[in-house]
Amino acid sequence: MVLMTNHFLEHPREHTQLPHFTKSLQASKSSISEDLDIIHEMFQEAGIGFLERVAGAAGGVKYIPDYSARHSESIIQTLCQELEDPKRILPGGYLYMSDILGDPKMVRDIGRVFASIFSTLDIDVVMTVATKGIPLAYAVAEFLDVPVVIVRRDPKVTEGSSVSINYVSGASRKIQTMVLPKRSLQEGANVCIVDDFMKAGGTITGMISLLEEFNANVRAIGVLAEADDEEDERVIDEYTSLVKITNVDLQKKQIEVHPGHFNLDKSYHN
Amino acid sequence: MVLMTNHFLEHPREHTQLPHFTKSLQASKSSISEDLDIIHEMFQEAGIGFLERVAGAAGGVKYIPDYSARHSESIIQTLCQELEDPKRILPGGYLYMSDILGDPKMVRDIGRVFASIFSTLDIDVVMTVATKGIPLAYAVAEFLDVPVVIVRRDPKVTEGSSVSINYVSGASRKIQTMVLPKRSLQEGANVCIVDDFMKAGGTITGMISLLEEFNANVRAIGVLAEADDEEDERVIDEYTSLVKITNVDLQKKQIEVHPGHFNLDKSYHN
Repeated sequence: MVLMTNHFLEHPREHTQLPHFTKSLQASKSSISEDLDIIHEMFQEAGIGFLERVAGAAGGVKYIPDYSARHSESIIQTLCQELEDPKRILPGGYLYMSDILGDPKMVRDIGRVFASIFSTLDIDVVMTVATKGIPLAYAVAEFLDVPVVIVRRDPKVTEGSSVSINYVSGASRKIQTMVLPKRSLQEGANVCIVDDFMKAGGTITGMISLLEEFNANVRAIGVLAEADDEEDERVIDEYTSLVKITNVDLQKKQIEVHPGHFNLDKSYHN
Repeated sequence: MVLMTNHFLEHPREHTQLPHFTKSLQASKSSISEDLDIIHEMFQEAGIGFLERVAGAAGGVKYIPDYSARHSESIIQTLCQELEDPKRILPGGYLYMSDILGDPKMVRDIGRVFASIFSTLDIDVVMTVATKGIPLAYAVAEFLDVPVVIVRRDPKVTEGSSVSINYVSGASRKIQTMVLPKRSLQEGANVCIVDDFMKAGGTITGMISLLEEFNANVRAIGVLAEADDEEDERVIDEYTSLVKITNVDLQKKQIEVHPGHFNLDKSYHN
């Protein structure tokens, strides 16, 4: 039971045929099957997902990580509280978030929330732009069992030929460049864009244009935090944000952070 | 058992007091204790680490992730094979590695190998430089249960005041800059440096100089791959590398990759 639990947690969304367990654990098919039922029940009780059984000759089982709404809400609540700490205020009304993004456990929790929300979207690859979105992108990708591609601001010799585009950065109206190595993305891939912060959404619009060059489909956009004050200028309307920073008052040293724009509805399974 | 296994795997190196389990699982102390013995045994059998029991009033248990030498060797072997694929050769004798670094499971496996090697070094924080080392650094940090700090080539407004240094990039002899936000590292911290690739070692020397400014201690240096041909010029001698790229023959389209410079000796426990 311990070994099977470990196997599922380490291999999210990977199809495992039952003979794998009967052989490696030297147990009968019926006792493995009973154990799978218990693990499924316990995972659901813990609110971390469920086991999906596939019947038939090529049958088997996979673990679908799927955070319960209760878990997700509690993580989002923690984020709101953490971000409201006035010590985070930086010149220009920016917020210091590097400590949160530097905590591997927090990052994994956030990744799991996104992966649960995007669970049924048939994502092939998670894309982000260097630098701060990278850890989040890996956490989301791990639970979706897909690779990560990283868009850069400058091409690198160690990545081979690449496709580049120019885009207009939302707030500052500066023209910037984005580069993605040709090898890193297949035509027609279903892509999930992940980033740490969205103001006017220029960077994400840039990534969308870049994906058009690869004939890829944007299936989901997830940002950890969005800035509320830029909402009027925003060019993107379908996205998921976990928190919304509604008010940074430099004078009073106050920050207001609220839950963002997300849908934790799990009606597609029970 | 399933829930306890999940708890340990999700909270590596975190001290849990026994009452946590007796309460949340509504089980007796003796049955929890028996389950802990089984989990400990199973983790060792699976080669993924062990449970460390602490006796006394503040007693409890923590899971120390510790890959068996056999696991680590098999991951290093896989890496060598993958990297010898001639399609990886890029102009200038560089190797394309973004696919390996873009695979969250592979990255986590590599992180676990490093975390096992550095397990007893009392690391407080993992440090890397943007961009490619970031996912590796998170994977190592997760299993060591410590935060990550990211050195940048350029300061960012969203990180507050920072310390910067200039250093000489090994091979190209160019002068470059490195920046680390002041808030991100405490004085006297024990640091583990992680990066994806080391040629002459200039970048790592830069990080060491930067750490001197913070009065921090470099306890370990881990690089995924090192280039063998730069060994003479190398300024760093104590480091761990998983693979060594000994020969990139552009003409014959051949790459030779060997296991690197590491010590999987686990004599310090059991």
